[in-house]
Amino acid sequence: MTSMRAIVITAPGDADVLRLVERPRPIPNPGEVLIRVAAAGVNRVDVLQRAGRYSPPTGPKDIPGVEVAGTVAGLGAGAGRFKEGDAVCALVIGGGYAEYVAVPEGQVLPRPAGLDMIQAAALPETFCTDWAALYDHGRLAPGESVLIHGGSSGIGTTAIMLARALGAGQIFATAGSAEKCRACEQLGATRAIDYRAEDFVAVVKAATQGRGVDVIIDMVAGDYVARNLSLLADDGRLVFISAMKGTFEGSFNVLDVMFRRLTITGLSLRGQSVARKTELVAAVEAGAWPLLAAGKIKPVIDRTYPLAAAAEAHRRLESSQHIGKLILNVAG
Amino acid sequence: MTSMRAIVITAPGDADVLRLVERPRPIPNPGEVLIRVAAAGVNRVDVLQRAGRYSPPTGPKDIPGVEVAGTVAGLGAGAGRFKEGDAVCALVIGGGYAEYVAVPEGQVLPRPAGLDMIQAAALPETFCTDWAALYDHGRLAPGESVLIHGGSSGIGTTAIMLARALGAGQIFATAGSAEKCRACEQLGATRAIDYRAEDFVAVVKAATQGRGVDVIIDMVAGDYVARNLSLLADDGRLVFISAMKGTFEGSFNVLDVMFRRLTITGLSLRGQSVARKTELVAAVEAGAWPLLAAGKIKPVIDRTYPLAAAAEAHRRLESSQHIGKLILNVAG
Repeated sequence: MTSMRAIVITAPGDADVLRLVERPRPIPNPGEVLIRVAAAGVNRVDVLQRAGRYSPPTGPKDIPGVEVAGTVAGLGAGAGRFKEGDAVCALVIGGGYAEYVAVPEGQVLPRPAGLDMIQAAALPETFCTDWAALYDHGRLAPGESVLIHGGSSGIGTTAIMLARALGAGQIFATAGSAEKCRACEQLGATRAIDYRAEDFVAVVKAATQGRGVDVIIDMVAGDYVARNLSLLADDGRLVFISAMKGTFEGSFNVLDVMFRRLTITGLSLRGQSVARKTELVAAVEAGAWPLLAAGKIKPVIDRTYPLAAAAEAHRRLESSQHIGKLILNVAG
Repeated sequence: MTSMRAIVITAPGDADVLRLVERPRPIPNPGEVLIRVAAAGVNRVDVLQRAGRYSPPTGPKDIPGVEVAGTVAGLGAGAGRFKEGDAVCALVIGGGYAEYVAVPEGQVLPRPAGLDMIQAAALPETFCTDWAALYDHGRLAPGESVLIHGGSSGIGTTAIMLARALGAGQIFATAGSAEKCRACEQLGATRAIDYRAEDFVAVVKAATQGRGVDVIIDMVAGDYVARNLSLLADDGRLVFISAMKGTFEGSFNVLDVMFRRLTITGLSLRGQSVARKTELVAAVEAGAWPLLAAGKIKPVIDRTYPLAAAAEAHRRLESSQHIGKLILNVAG
């Protein structure tokens, strides 16, 4: 009864290196909550980790997974907010692709009313990342405009919905097909741009009478950096949350940054301290959970997979064919 | 009686293009204050303008000067805060090298108690720039560390004093000689670095046990950009306020910006709206004027020159031999 099923990375490599194994069930440390996992979100950082391009700072090194939903199955000393059996979701440092995971209490949120476990597992990573990107780093104010790259991804769909629900002005999104663009606009994008068919710089410039946008959320980097900077309005903020193009050197004009008061910044949730994650999780619970409970926004689920089929989920994520989130149905 | 003496830029070029001429005295527009100028600060932006490398967006195009001190000599309709004869200083958009200048009321500050006109003329540009750089853009918090390049300049000396008075932790400054370094340390720098003799990256790394600093105020750019980024602590902010090295392209590593949550930003006072300058001036009056009135900080004056000798003041600024501010004694 103290073992569990988990997906491990047997060696750095492609999706085939993921293997279902038996592992000891984790024991919660003081201040931690043990969660019996019902569903786990699949994220790009899991793929990076599997490929050997990212190593988590602490926690299980070979079990991927940074967000889960499930029920409280145990409490470490001093963990007092939740009780056994509570439905919760959580931001974890790794180890999410498993039947049990232990996580600091401050990274655990109640499951929003009206959502099932699959939906709840889609929330922690994208909502925390987008909240930090749009509001902490991007300082997006009501009425300001935003451009969201990768608009049909899990991160992108959430960013569009959050920006819309919290009063952004024009919301632009880029995506890689007409179908994905339609999805972005249904979620609240003012105008989605199929980057395979249109030049996003020209479209956004035209739609803003040359002014540009206040905030850009970028997960592409590479040759997007200079194009993004050219699209920032005065006082604009460019926020990196990923660098999918894999060319990591950006350049900028110092005088342009000065005279237009531009800001270039970025974030990654991993590597942040438990204290900072606790703060962020609290801000997300206060700001976004009421929107979810009221049904004003709802996570977009692309597909679900059994835990044993994690490799298939990775392949779909890498194919970029999905719209919204891929979820492992661990309890299913 | 409606004419005045003023220094004009007769053509783009070296300091010899500055010429003392007679000009009509300006008439204050609604909301403006007419100041009889007693003293005017000399700034790098004046040199850039003289050399043809900067053109002010509005105001007199050929009279340099962005900060003055003097007495109120007239009021436009609706300007009600000050009365004739009040001792004031002001941030102007240009036209400061003259016996009279008209300026929006929101850019005018009372002369701090205990300071003379020469000292008051040294305040507006440096205090507003440094306040915006350290606190608005740099978000410097008490206890945080800061590196100030050009520490012995007018901007630099003010930044050191403001950071010290407002509770910064370690304060590093770079300067170009042992004498300038001594001046920086007397003003409150924890450690000044003679960049001609020492590698500032190595010194700051060693003094911070490899952590780096929270905020860097840079006026150099060029090859300092990469060195600055390498010196930022996690969550650090690099703020450009000038680009003296004249190479304006900076580069950065996107993943480093993300994983360490770095911020690259900058500002220039000129080109900002009257509304924004009014806000900034109000913040400076609230935050820094009490420190000046209490004698906790005092502007550092390098030399004063008669108005007619503005060219000499420019030559000294360009020689970088000065420590602190160069001031034109217009009334003297």
